[in-house]
Amino acid sequence: MKTLVIIASHNSTSFNNAIKKRAVEKLKNDGHDIVVRDLYEMNFNPVLTKNDFEKLHGNNLPEEIVREQEYIKWAEKIIVIYPIWWTGMPAILKGYFDRVMLYGFAYKFDNTGLVKLLKGKEALIFSTSGQPKEHYEAIGMYDAMNKTTDLGIFDFVGINVKKHIYFPSIISANDSTRNEYLNTVEQELN
Amino acid sequence: MKTLVIIASHNSTSFNNAIKKRAVEKLKNDGHDIVVRDLYEMNFNPVLTKNDFEKLHGNNLPEEIVREQEYIKWAEKIIVIYPIWWTGMPAILKGYFDRVMLYGFAYKFDNTGLVKLLKGKEALIFSTSGQPKEHYEAIGMYDAMNKTTDLGIFDFVGINVKKHIYFPSIISANDSTRNEYLNTVEQELN
Repeated sequence: MKTLVIIASHNSTSFNNAIKKRAVEKLKNDGHDIVVRDLYEMNFNPVLTKNDFEKLHGNNLPEEIVREQEYIKWAEKIIVIYPIWWTGMPAILKGYFDRVMLYGFAYKFDNTGLVKLLKGKEALIFSTSGQPKEHYEAIGMYDAMNKTTDLGIFDFVGINVKKHIYFPSIISANDSTRNEYLNTVEQELN
Repeated sequence: MKTLVIIASHNSTSFNNAIKKRAVEKLKNDGHDIVVRDLYEMNFNPVLTKNDFEKLHGNNLPEEIVREQEYIKWAEKIIVIYPIWWTGMPAILKGYFDRVMLYGFAYKFDNTGLVKLLKGKEALIFSTSGQPKEHYEAIGMYDAMNKTTDLGIFDFVGINVKKHIYFPSIISANDSTRNEYLNTVEQELN
């Protein structure tokens, strides 16, 4: 299966990178075709500008955007890995969607309304958080985060989010908890 | 009253800029002290890096971050203006919070748990969207967006969001609707 792994982690020794490593090992063992897009390593520019819009209308998108669109088009499965910052994505990942998921590529509107252009693909999302599970549960934040990410981005373009898995209390998590989390990553990729 | 206006709009002729203009006029007429931070105009870099963290721990933050923290400290009222992109903030604004609302400045933890360091300030948020109201209402998205923005960012640091006002269907809105929206901005600033 053609699998795209997108990771936004500012620190190469982070637990998010451990998730990526475990996921890639598992996917390789299972014989997947894998492409990894490490947004920090790529120094991806997440700021959508007026210039991008003008180039979109002129059918003349920047190469760095076309390249990402090609990877998304190619992929059957998309794994997204990021830490929750302020109950959302790090800006570098939010801006990846701002800049790459453009009108005409990811969605369009016709007489029938919204047309989702990336149907048939599946996503699996892993998010770590410093906050404990109880903090988010008490205020319905998991539901809100699922809505603003899984529904608001992926479902809008037709990508089916198979699961969005959260690994809470990551800063204080001991080795045993971290191993458990990594085993979950492996199981979810079965 | 000391009022900070933060705007993230990629296009100087956008309706978001019309909101900013009307808000600033009104605030000036009412005798407020005003500082405007136009993130696109400032070419604000929204990517929080490992380097930022290291500098935070070394008590040696980049000047561009310290400057924004000073403005937030100074402000009694904060007006935030941005278009909804993918049911969230444009990356440049999300990254403003990622980089500026740092541990020790905006919040900290002690024996009692979370300490909100920006208490006593009030925010008013204006968000435009291309999507119609009905689209968001049908899936509970306003509640989700309020949670991931107002609760997840502002309330977490003690800033009271007085109101988060959404202006839907902005692309197809005619002059009369746009005027109505701008009048709402003015009224909310009373």
